[in-house]
Amino acid sequence: MQFASDNAGPAHPSVLEALIDANAGYAPAYGVDPVTEGARAALRETLEAPSASVQFVTTGTAANSIALAALCPPWGTVFCTPVAHIHQDECNAPEFFSGGAKLTLVGQSDKLTPETLDEAIRAEESRGVHGPQRGPVSITQATERGRIYTPDEVAALAQVAHDHGLALHMDGARFANAVVALGCTPADLSWKAGVDALSFGGTKNGLLGVEAVVFFEQGRDWEVQLRRKRGAHLMSKHRYLGAQMAAYLDGGLWLELARAANAGATRLAEGLAPAGAGMDHPPQANIVFARLPRAVHARLKDAGAVYYLWDADDGGPEDEMLLARFVCDWSLGADQIDAFLALL
Amino acid sequence: MQFASDNAGPAHPSVLEALIDANAGYAPAYGVDPVTEGARAALRETLEAPSASVQFVTTGTAANSIALAALCPPWGTVFCTPVAHIHQDECNAPEFFSGGAKLTLVGQSDKLTPETLDEAIRAEESRGVHGPQRGPVSITQATERGRIYTPDEVAALAQVAHDHGLALHMDGARFANAVVALGCTPADLSWKAGVDALSFGGTKNGLLGVEAVVFFEQGRDWEVQLRRKRGAHLMSKHRYLGAQMAAYLDGGLWLELARAANAGATRLAEGLAPAGAGMDHPPQANIVFARLPRAVHARLKDAGAVYYLWDADDGGPEDEMLLARFVCDWSLGADQIDAFLALL
Amino acid sequence: MQFASDNAGPAHPSVLEALIDANAGYAPAYGVDPVTEGARAALRETLEAPSASVQFVTTGTAANSIALAALCPPWGTVFCTPVAHIHQDECNAPEFFSGGAKLTLVGQSDKLTPETLDEAIRAEESRGVHGPQRGPVSITQATERGRIYTPDEVAALAQVAHDHGLALHMDGARFANAVVALGCTPADLSWKAGVDALSFGGTKNGLLGVEAVVFFEQGRDWEVQLRRKRGAHLMSKHRYLGAQMAAYLDGGLWLELARAANAGATRLAEGLAPAGAGMDHPPQANIVFARLPRAVHARLKDAGAVYYLWDADDGGPEDEMLLARFVCDWSLGADQIDAFLALL
Amino acid sequence: MQFASDNAGPAHPSVLEALIDANAGYAPAYGVDPVTEGARAALRETLEAPSASVQFVTTGTAANSIALAALCPPWGTVFCTPVAHIHQDECNAPEFFSGGAKLTLVGQSDKLTPETLDEAIRAEESRGVHGPQRGPVSITQATERGRIYTPDEVAALAQVAHDHGLALHMDGARFANAVVALGCTPADLSWKAGVDALSFGGTKNGLLGVEAVVFFEQGRDWEVQLRRKRGAHLMSKHRYLGAQMAAYLDGGLWLELARAANAGATRLAEGLAPAGAGMDHPPQANIVFARLPRAVHARLKDAGAVYYLWDADDGGPEDEMLLARFVCDWSLGADQIDAFLALL
Repeated sequence: MQFASDNAGPAHPSVLEALIDANAGYAPAYGVDPVTEGARAALRETLEAPSASVQFVTTGTAANSIALAALCPPWGTVFCTPVAHIHQDECNAPEFFSGGAKLTLVGQSDKLTPETLDEAIRAEESRGVHGPQRGPVSITQATERGRIYTPDEVAALAQVAHDHGLALHMDGARFANAVVALGCTPADLSWKAGVDALSFGGTKNGLLGVEAVVFFEQGRDWEVQLRRKRGAHLMSKHRYLGAQMAAYLDGGLWLELARAANAGATRLAEGLAPAGAGMDHPPQANIVFARLPRAVHARLKDAGAVYYLWDADDGGPEDEMLLARFVCDWSLGADQIDAFLALL
Repeated sequence: MQFASDNAGPAHPSVLEALIDANAGYAPAYGVDPVTEGARAALRETLEAPSASVQFVTTGTAANSIALAALCPPWGTVFCTPVAHIHQDECNAPEFFSGGAKLTLVGQSDKLTPETLDEAIRAEESRGVHGPQRGPVSITQATERGRIYTPDEVAALAQVAHDHGLALHMDGARFANAVVALGCTPADLSWKAGVDALSFGGTKNGLLGVEAVVFFEQGRDWEVQLRRKRGAHLMSKHRYLGAQMAAYLDGGLWLELARAANAGATRLAEGLAPAGAGMDHPPQANIVFARLPRAVHARLKDAGAVYYLWDADDGGPEDEMLLARFVCDWSLGADQIDAFLALL
Repeated sequence: MQFASDNAGPAHPSVLEALIDANAGYAPAYGVDPVTEGARAALRETLEAPSASVQFVTTGTAANSIALAALCPPWGTVFCTPVAHIHQDECNAPEFFSGGAKLTLVGQSDKLTPETLDEAIRAEESRGVHGPQRGPVSITQATERGRIYTPDEVAALAQVAHDHGLALHMDGARFANAVVALGCTPADLSWKAGVDALSFGGTKNGLLGVEAVVFFEQGRDWEVQLRRKRGAHLMSKHRYLGAQMAAYLDGGLWLELARAANAGATRLAEGLAPAGAGMDHPPQANIVFARLPRAVHARLKDAGAVYYLWDADDGGPEDEMLLARFVCDWSLGADQIDAFLALL
Repeated sequence: MQFASDNAGPAHPSVLEALIDANAGYAPAYGVDPVTEGARAALRETLEAPSASVQFVTTGTAANSIALAALCPPWGTVFCTPVAHIHQDECNAPEFFSGGAKLTLVGQSDKLTPETLDEAIRAEESRGVHGPQRGPVSITQATERGRIYTPDEVAALAQVAHDHGLALHMDGARFANAVVALGCTPADLSWKAGVDALSFGGTKNGLLGVEAVVFFEQGRDWEVQLRRKRGAHLMSKHRYLGAQMAAYLDGGLWLELARAANAGATRLAEGLAPAGAGMDHPPQANIVFARLPRAVHARLKDAGAVYYLWDADDGGPEDEMLLARFVCDWSLGADQIDAFLALL
């Protein structure tokens, strides 16, 4: 009954086997080993982007920060939502890597709309040398609230960004969950929809810790490598990153794991509804937000369920509805979900 | 016949087994899982430093940069040798993490002496607000040239630093090799000798990629955690770092692996000497520097030996002696060394 | 009919005379000359703060950025309003000087209230190492919209900040205008109300270009000097800064100039009201915001009036009311105001 | 008898008169006023560089830091001498503005030679992503030791830099003294000799505090303006910078002042020689280095002479020769020099 985070789940056994396989004998350090080269090629193939720059790091914050720093000068600003991971959960890493760029918070929710984005960009238009200069747009897919941008929605945002001469970055920590939910191709959801740079996640979806910085735009690879090294993110025994990513992409494992995670969320939501839980929206990926009475939360926690209580619980009426976030990872068994639902 | 780098070697099987063990089920993310907590405790015990701050990162550059940034203000300068890894091989990461501090290069070799250090520190004394302000001293143990500071030598440098009110940082990427070479305790070679902060290496000595930032000084832990997170170095599935480090320390595996690596270097050096190779100094850790004729290098490389030619090889007389660096990792078998020597 | 900005006005003749006086012969460079020392002492006396740190720079952005960087770690966030000069008009200088801190925008207006401030601070409380850490509060006095915080209002905000262990910074680019409007002492409006650091403005109020970074808290002076030098803001021929500031404070010239500027705004507002101009609020300092029909703006501009049209003028009905900002500087004559009003 | 620094001397009366003239009435802020535009045009004309980017700041450190940051990425290194002002006397400002670039110290003296420069650049060639990347070359004209690069010497260094694809920056804090000493044109000594960016000094040579950042390369102007604003160096009442620079260039005043300063140094050196003072080299600009017995120094200081004792004076034999630096500014009268010499 573990719904705290997909970061709390294990790596997939195939990934560990790949580590063991990659461990035999010597391999060149710093990313020029065959395993890593293979994994980079595999991701380019997966994305149908044969000339993309693909480089690996160990955290999503690193992927985001390196990508954004390459797109945003120190005197610029990144357009994102107020709940963006890059704003709320990265301890100023994007500001650090960019040399002091700002983040301009757009709208009130977890998703940008073309209208709010356009308005926000225009609002930064008029201050000349005094204001921050307009930098890239960054969206999260799936969002921090478990919602998804369709390819058309991404394309509409890309259009707005590009019309202003700005790039579009996608924080794809849960990109896999979005791809399987939409039933589209990775290319449909990235460069074909106008995404210029993608943080391609793996950690939350069955790896020990690998993310890729992907630039579809040509000519960025060396800069990404320099920013990675200077950020102390160039792993010396790089084959272990390559091995994880290769196993992840091999045979579509990454999609299979995301499907399992999303299915968990669907099962959970279907079970919660008859139990009277109010849901903000039907789960689109692997995250469920639901409201339950305070007394029910107490009972669930006592029974060992682990999840994140979104509303502050500072005591109050037993029947007050409190919002909770449930994240389903790939390894979450149907039995655990059912056991949880049985407690309701 | 692989002597390129200890970064090219594999991880020890016990470490991979520990990963598999740690992979079972759920674990809290971001470093508060029991495996990580255990590994932190084990390192504190290994160092006989029960109140030390111990935090894990995935690269030595990260460990060094975070430690130095905590010790050096942006307007300061770090005293180190001209061949220090932090100067030559980290692509300005220490400058990045510190916000623009300098590195003052002291002496001409891989080891600081109390005299050269004291002179260099005094030379930065007199410029008031105009010059960089004096920051920490950083030494590498074992050095980039494979030499070792004895505890007395470390203590003498610490004395100089402390007399000027400055801290002593040790880049211990090969700390294990130094400890076993000296036959002292880890405490003897660190805090008992006056070391204030230690980058405790694991990656070069049998891990996939884990280093520890250790502060013996109280009150640094939270700052280290903030600097790590802001540097995008807080691994979410932290148990995999903890598991590696726990296996590394368990039963003295780390010392056993370092002994094997050092023994390889000794075996190699003993074989090279009768073959007429000129050595700069007898190997003290796991690195051998030796001069061989150009023609011999050509023969060795043709036979598949891999090592780093230190002198540029831009063509020249066959009998010209060229300096080469041979690094022995823990996994290098005596048979490989002997096969290599047989080629001479 | 110049209402564009108090930056467009001249320096007071006494200030130029002081420059000429200070120009005789030699003087030690870098701020240790007697003229500068005298000016620093005079400002401490003016503020009734004999142990305050007082250092001079040439721009308000420098004063703000140095002060905030001293108060906010790179992983922190500064609480300010969405229209704060430090946010909108300093091209990321506070982010630059702080090494990448954030600015958290509080409320919707130009003034913080204790309630909105407290709520914003609390909202940043719970993310541990993941979110930005809470840093100083910064308010502008008089605000960017020409309003004023009373000593009681400042004290209430200081109380909130201090209750959370945070410092209060005041951007006092128009501090003089606030002091004379309130009829209080400079001390009442700064340290006695809980202000920890003050950017004490001079440029907008009759100097060529001098602002002071003031820390009431002990022990900050050397850090301010280092940050100033590292920011390339330590003027070598410092006597010319000292001379300006000394003349500014001498005999209360600074208050006299601010009174003149404020009186201009009052005269302007009184003239606008009968002309049917809608005012957001009566002017409290030297800035007037007023709404006039588009057609009137066109007429005024044609007649040579210079001021800032706040609402975008992208064409529209002649009778549409457009918001304009009028800033009165110390040198603005009553005749110019009357000539302007006569145009209405 | 003031030889401490040309920063200790006054501004020329014409410059103050120009301030007074510029003070009349209103002028647009932030550098778009006619006085500033005129001064920018005048400097472009002086340099015979009609399309150069010219922007003003108030300190030489700002000019250097902005120019170097525009030329050097954060992962790069600047090649300069070990006594360069940017290294020794700017408290890490170039590192700050560049976001953490290094300075690589070349040679042992105050002047680069093509050979030492080429060797140093080549030495940074081979480390791939690990080492700092090679950035611009920076030379000081006249040097910190009062020596001068001829146009041919500059051209030879530019050739080396350009052959490696690197830019050449000139710290021209005493550019005027070099131009008049050489009898060449400003163009001969800058862009015609291959200089890409010039910090054009004024403060040491009769201004209150103005330096220009000059880029001969097209397309740099907007970046310079952004870096200046973000560094808090965009003076609002910019006319006072423009007025100083205009007066400085008008009628060749800047060259006249430099001639006076250089003549002072020549007169001083000619007087010192018969008095037995050992000189490192004949003065080439406005700085004299000379060795005098300790007892003589004591006598001179007692008599009120002010200059910088280069060797540490920690007590010793009366006849020990101690090196001293004498800087002559434009205002130093022959009578003061003669009075000083009479003391010998």
